[in-house]
Amino acid sequence: MVTPLIDIDTLDVAGMERLIEHIIAGGVSGLFILGTTGEFSSLSYKLRHELIDRVCRQVNGRIPVLVGITDTSLIESVNLANKAADAGASAVVSAPPYYYATGQPELIEYYEHLVPKLPLPLYLYNMPVHTKVMIDPNTVRKISDMPKVIGLKDSSANAVYFRLVQYAMRDKPDFELFMGPEEITAEAVLLGAHGGVNGGANMFPKLYVDMYKAAAARDLVSLKPLQDKILQISSTIYTVGRFGSSYLKGLKCALSLMGICSDYLADPFHHFKEEERTKIRKSLEALEMGIKLK
Amino acid sequence: MVTPLIDIDTLDVAGMERLIEHIIAGGVSGLFILGTTGEFSSLSYKLRHELIDRVCRQVNGRIPVLVGITDTSLIESVNLANKAADAGASAVVSAPPYYYATGQPELIEYYEHLVPKLPLPLYLYNMPVHTKVMIDPNTVRKISDMPKVIGLKDSSANAVYFRLVQYAMRDKPDFELFMGPEEITAEAVLLGAHGGVNGGANMFPKLYVDMYKAAAARDLVSLKPLQDKILQISSTIYTVGRFGSSYLKGLKCALSLMGICSDYLADPFHHFKEEERTKIRKSLEALEMGIKLK
Amino acid sequence: MVTPLIDIDTLDVAGMERLIEHIIAGGVSGLFILGTTGEFSSLSYKLRHELIDRVCRQVNGRIPVLVGITDTSLIESVNLANKAADAGASAVVSAPPYYYATGQPELIEYYEHLVPKLPLPLYLYNMPVHTKVMIDPNTVRKISDMPKVIGLKDSSANAVYFRLVQYAMRDKPDFELFMGPEEITAEAVLLGAHGGVNGGANMFPKLYVDMYKAAAARDLVSLKPLQDKILQISSTIYTVGRFGSSYLKGLKCALSLMGICSDYLADPFHHFKEEERTKIRKSLEALEMGIKLK
Amino acid sequence: MVTPLIDIDTLDVAGMERLIEHIIAGGVSGLFILGTTGEFSSLSYKLRHELIDRVCRQVNGRIPVLVGITDTSLIESVNLANKAADAGASAVVSAPPYYYATGQPELIEYYEHLVPKLPLPLYLYNMPVHTKVMIDPNTVRKISDMPKVIGLKDSSANAVYFRLVQYAMRDKPDFELFMGPEEITAEAVLLGAHGGVNGGANMFPKLYVDMYKAAAARDLVSLKPLQDKILQISSTIYTVGRFGSSYLKGLKCALSLMGICSDYLADPFHHFKEEERTKIRKSLEALEMGIKLK
Repeated sequence: MVTPLIDIDTLDVAGMERLIEHIIAGGVSGLFILGTTGEFSSLSYKLRHELIDRVCRQVNGRIPVLVGITDTSLIESVNLANKAADAGASAVVSAPPYYYATGQPELIEYYEHLVPKLPLPLYLYNMPVHTKVMIDPNTVRKISDMPKVIGLKDSSANAVYFRLVQYAMRDKPDFELFMGPEEITAEAVLLGAHGGVNGGANMFPKLYVDMYKAAAARDLVSLKPLQDKILQISSTIYTVGRFGSSYLKGLKCALSLMGICSDYLADPFHHFKEEERTKIRKSLEALEMGIKLK
Repeated sequence: MVTPLIDIDTLDVAGMERLIEHIIAGGVSGLFILGTTGEFSSLSYKLRHELIDRVCRQVNGRIPVLVGITDTSLIESVNLANKAADAGASAVVSAPPYYYATGQPELIEYYEHLVPKLPLPLYLYNMPVHTKVMIDPNTVRKISDMPKVIGLKDSSANAVYFRLVQYAMRDKPDFELFMGPEEITAEAVLLGAHGGVNGGANMFPKLYVDMYKAAAARDLVSLKPLQDKILQISSTIYTVGRFGSSYLKGLKCALSLMGICSDYLADPFHHFKEEERTKIRKSLEALEMGIKLK
Repeated sequence: MVTPLIDIDTLDVAGMERLIEHIIAGGVSGLFILGTTGEFSSLSYKLRHELIDRVCRQVNGRIPVLVGITDTSLIESVNLANKAADAGASAVVSAPPYYYATGQPELIEYYEHLVPKLPLPLYLYNMPVHTKVMIDPNTVRKISDMPKVIGLKDSSANAVYFRLVQYAMRDKPDFELFMGPEEITAEAVLLGAHGGVNGGANMFPKLYVDMYKAAAARDLVSLKPLQDKILQISSTIYTVGRFGSSYLKGLKCALSLMGICSDYLADPFHHFKEEERTKIRKSLEALEMGIKLK
Repeated sequence: MVTPLIDIDTLDVAGMERLIEHIIAGGVSGLFILGTTGEFSSLSYKLRHELIDRVCRQVNGRIPVLVGITDTSLIESVNLANKAADAGASAVVSAPPYYYATGQPELIEYYEHLVPKLPLPLYLYNMPVHTKVMIDPNTVRKISDMPKVIGLKDSSANAVYFRLVQYAMRDKPDFELFMGPEEITAEAVLLGAHGGVNGGANMFPKLYVDMYKAAAARDLVSLKPLQDKILQISSTIYTVGRFGSSYLKGLKCALSLMGICSDYLADPFHHFKEEERTKIRKSLEALEMGIKLK
């Protein structure tokens, strides 16, 4: 879930409530806040705490809430996890610390220290573009033996890696494997992954849920048009702008055009100006999803 | 196809003939020589020419032969393509020049200059680890409009990229899209790719052909055990050794243990010593593929 | 300055006091806390605040204290800067936010938002290995026009970059340029840099001060043996261990052997075990710096 | 030395002769052909052979000619070295093979195989941007023990690396260390390097020779204005254009404007169009080097 903001340190509360209801109405199985798409690293801790509270209250047990606790400081990760537990979240999600690059043995030792301090089950989060390290399949295997480690979200886009993790975990079919990039969630699920954690579901939750269901049912005929729509979104909504931030800027811009929430981005990013906004508007219209734009 | 060698500048001719027959007997649809797995860049031009001649003669039209012409020098690429045409090859395969990193417009201009000079149809080859550049989906789209450009082999392992290329080429269903990494060929084919170009087929061509057939037929039940075997090969044969060369060293070591051809590698790589060879032997036995090892 | 720790969330206060006195006695011109060498990103905010307080109190105005406020959240950077001002620090130091990679225009906008909120003068901190972005010479030039931005510390090790920044700032001779890596501080100062910010000065402050003085005086004869000693330290103390963390682990291990402070490292790093410690001990002895080891 | 071209496979012979005389008149100590600036990798072998012959004939023993033999194929490197020896060159220069990334032990083994086959003394060439590998200081030390290996050119721009190589070679003061980037040749020489191999000397050989002499004489007063001019060249001639190729395009464009040789670049690069050419013209004029432009 994106984090709707009015300014750098103020939640767009009404937008957040609309967004949560929009997403739940789409049929998703859970809500992941304070991930990369949620701009967790750009937010103050005060705001992160407020968000955890408000989201858990708004969701009110209807679906599980997963809270990102990724931090460069293990202590701050634990603080966030405790907050999440107090607020009633179901699980926490942790990518490796991301200032220093770490070696695999250092990663294992890190989780040996972190996991026992956590009050909630943990999903690992592989996000090498931002953390400078892949959690190797063998490292995932070792960390998965720690109690409370129940799954992995992989956002590397490296499908070979995902397959090799899946193979390394073949004797633990309950260890949940989630695919991050929405463009390849279908194929991951077709070959046994447990689901996807897809940013596009902020805009069109039902589309991604339907894609998941078709893939889980091995219904390739139904899957094709859904997959095409998802690739159209990826090719047209996420590619306006010159930097790696295009995805996030496009996504928030679209949510704003759809009347759901503000397009404010926390520093170091900033929302699209009129020129890019017009492009996103046209791309949204071309999707023919039956939505009304502001 | 790997390039069987007796020493750095001498083909293992008998091994090469055995290997070709072994591969064709496995039912493959074509033979790609002088690719990354074929150590093209480490071989002298004299040897590359000899290999093109001998392979085309041995195959003798039974299946198409595709010849890698990737080079940092456009002129040398053309020379190799002319040689391939003379020898009776069906097509050539070209990755971007790989000493200097290139921008996308430079890539397009490069192919504008190269393609008209080629006597054979061309497959693009996306191999960013080695060439330092992704051929962007839009760049693929533009190059595909040049006559004789008929397909793309993607070895990036980035499945998001592959899906976006597929989407960019959606109005040209005949443009052939091949997946390089064997671990993810099945899912690529399931979602519409035309096939795989898999190094493991040097060892077990029938396994990879069967995997392709199951994926193309959307037969997920038959696919599962084949896919598991392929992931076992990837996890155990390609991971002995400390460097990026582990894949190539493991593959040639296995072929040597299977009695097919020499395990000699051209500089800058060198074959496994006894310790690693013993590991590969055990991994091959654990595969239970019914093969006899030397 | 390294951050002496007893455990992940407890300062080694006595060690910190010894270390500060040791460094000041060596004649340094200032003290930089909460930088990369200070493990800022691994520490809780509570601990960072305590450190700022204790260091400023211990230094007590004898030399300027510079406080690292690098953070992925602009708000948390401002919080740290306010704390630094309250405690009596002289300036703050900021590297770009380091979770998302940023483009140059995004960087400029980031500092346009950050700088007006700061109560103290600011040094930029170029640290591309950790932040994934070089602050381009032209970007430095533009940010330097904002009030209160008074200098740059460059830890890229890219001397071409440093020269080009120096050239871009040639009309602002008061803009202070500091070199991070101690191995190349001498040459930077010889050609006009204002000084170095060198981690090795935790161990041997006088050595680095003497090197600076010789370089500033263009006394190449005196410089040579000092430079050789510095390269010996770099080659033998910072290279034990397999990962990027070797520098930090070696430095803290040496400080522990010298009886100055604990060698505890905050997660994700961990101190050297006996085998590496023995190597560091031998390397320290081989330096013949006249120090007594524990 | 750049390689003057009329088209992709034809030398600009008259331009080449003018360029050689221009460079020798500037007082350089040697001529390095077929390096990165010489577009070696983009040229056909036929053209490389012709260039070696023509350059050696034109130089005619007045200064040493060094020939780049970098290649992905060891056999082709030896072929080039033999050609260089036949033509009367003084030494050869070799960067690691650059298609596959290599590990340090693989690098050592590579040079163990290459060096005995060479008819001329060898300079190593560290060029990690293009070869994907740093030749570690310890690896340089080991390779330097092989007979005929007499020096290293470092083009990494990493001054820490250069200092550590220098330290690792401190017991072999005759092992020649050359700095590639012209922006930092002065400081390298000030601290003991043997010289620079600077592309800008194609345009203004005397400037770079004077810079070297001032640095070697530790004459910092004379050095300053020379160094400033060199940084101005780097900041204004090499930065027009969007890609890594800007340096090469700017350099050849300037040589063309100076009436020395053609600005044709071999694929995958292409010369600047009128817009960029006008910028280079203005930058050349602003240098006030007393040259007449075409």
